Amino acid sequence: MLTTIAFDADDTLWRNNSHFTITETTFANLLQEYSQTKDLNKQLLETEKQNLNYYGYGAKGYTLSMIETAIEVTQGRVPTTIISQLLDLGRELLRYPIELYSGVEEVLHELQGEYRIILITKGDLLDQERKISQSGLADQFETINIVSEKSKEVYQKIFKDVGVDPTNALMVGNSLRSDIIPPLEIGSYAVLIPNQDEWIYENEGQVPTHSKRFFEIKNISELPKTVKKIVESL
Amino acid sequence: MLTTIAFDADDTLWRNNSHFTITETTFANLLQEYSQTKDLNKQLLETEKQNLNYYGYGAKGYTLSMIETAIEVTQGRVPTTIISQLLDLGRELLRYPIELYSGVEEVLHELQGEYRIILITKGDLLDQERKISQSGLADQFETINIVSEKSKEVYQKIFKDVGVDPTNALMVGNSLRSDIIPPLEIGSYAVLIPNQDEWIYENEGQVPTHSKRFFEIKNISELPKTVKKIVESL
Repeated sequence: MLTTIAFDADDTLWRNNSHFTITETTFANLLQEYSQTKDLNKQLLETEKQNLNYYGYGAKGYTLSMIETAIEVTQGRVPTTIISQLLDLGRELLRYPIELYSGVEEVLHELQGEYRIILITKGDLLDQERKISQSGLADQFETINIVSEKSKEVYQKIFKDVGVDPTNALMVGNSLRSDIIPPLEIGSYAVLIPNQDEWIYENEGQVPTHSKRFFEIKNISELPKTVKKIVESL
Repeated sequence: MLTTIAFDADDTLWRNNSHFTITETTFANLLQEYSQTKDLNKQLLETEKQNLNYYGYGAKGYTLSMIETAIEVTQGRVPTTIISQLLDLGRELLRYPIELYSGVEEVLHELQGEYRIILITKGDLLDQERKISQSGLADQFETINIVSEKSKEVYQKIFKDVGVDPTNALMVGNSLRSDIIPPLEIGSYAVLIPNQDEWIYENEGQVPTHSKRFFEIKNISELPKTVKKIVESL
């Protein structure tokens, strides 16, 4: 049985990471003349990873990591005017307009009648709330779950809260690490929609092509067909 | 009827703001020689308030506001070594050990049998989770609600989620703005436990001494007595 479809938000329903990519380019450009470090973005990623335990995901921790990296890679020579610019860049990440991917509204509408639809997203609480609100999609979801980490325990708890057995649930998302591997581990279905503009951290891991509960599609418009295929095979 | 008691966390169950107060003193000491601004903490509070819409509550936004203020009040003359120290201070706020106030465990235990006990706290998601986990109290609460803002709409939703009418619920906390005024507005009971070491922002507002549903106690150990008084008056 398949009763429940859970959606990731950032980079699954709307563009997100590309805003960070643009910011990273600006970051590297701003610091270039003050630093000998060749791959500034690699250094930034390292700092981000080191800080994840404290900051978690989202634009605020990202901004703090940018500032830390800027000081580090310039041995403190970065001018404070640039640090101010990094603060501004960070604030921009907290107010970019939400652009839904094409097909999102139609797909949610189509699946609505037959399945329970929920949202599972990670990041800064207030910022995720803002994005969901601006997306205009809030009413489409039976529950909205903003979590600090998408572990299998977190999925278990969310599915328990809505009263669905994990084996009757399907998760849709763009991140191997967060949307695909944990749901498969607890027996759910998982549909990967890879995103061209992806945070590298989210796709560390092996695509589980061996799993019969794993599917990959090119864009969200293909989801209803895949869901149908799953249901027919049951 | 009184069926449900909701608790605030920071500065109600454990010490929190005093860590920020210590940080603020360090902040002012670090910047003193670079700035003409007399009341550095007042300036910091202004920046924090301006950023609330973007950053929300919690140590990450606070750290970003410290850095912004440091650059502003020194007209950019603040050395990057000090900005690094501000980053460190911010990280300290994300890992201070949790010290329960005396009486907290006993009071929760005592009320447990007769009332549904829930937690309502605002701040950074991951950090609030860490604090709740380290408090050892997680199992004491039927639901744990980490929210971005404690508005009356948020209280309404939480009470609806647990299936309690607001008029049958009581909120306990230290903040007039967040724990007392919104619950009273939706017809709940509210018990204020003022805290010596309070973030000034949280106590802007008038103590609602006129309300028959408002109570004030000196420390959490007095709560069972107050609850008894409420129930007997019904």
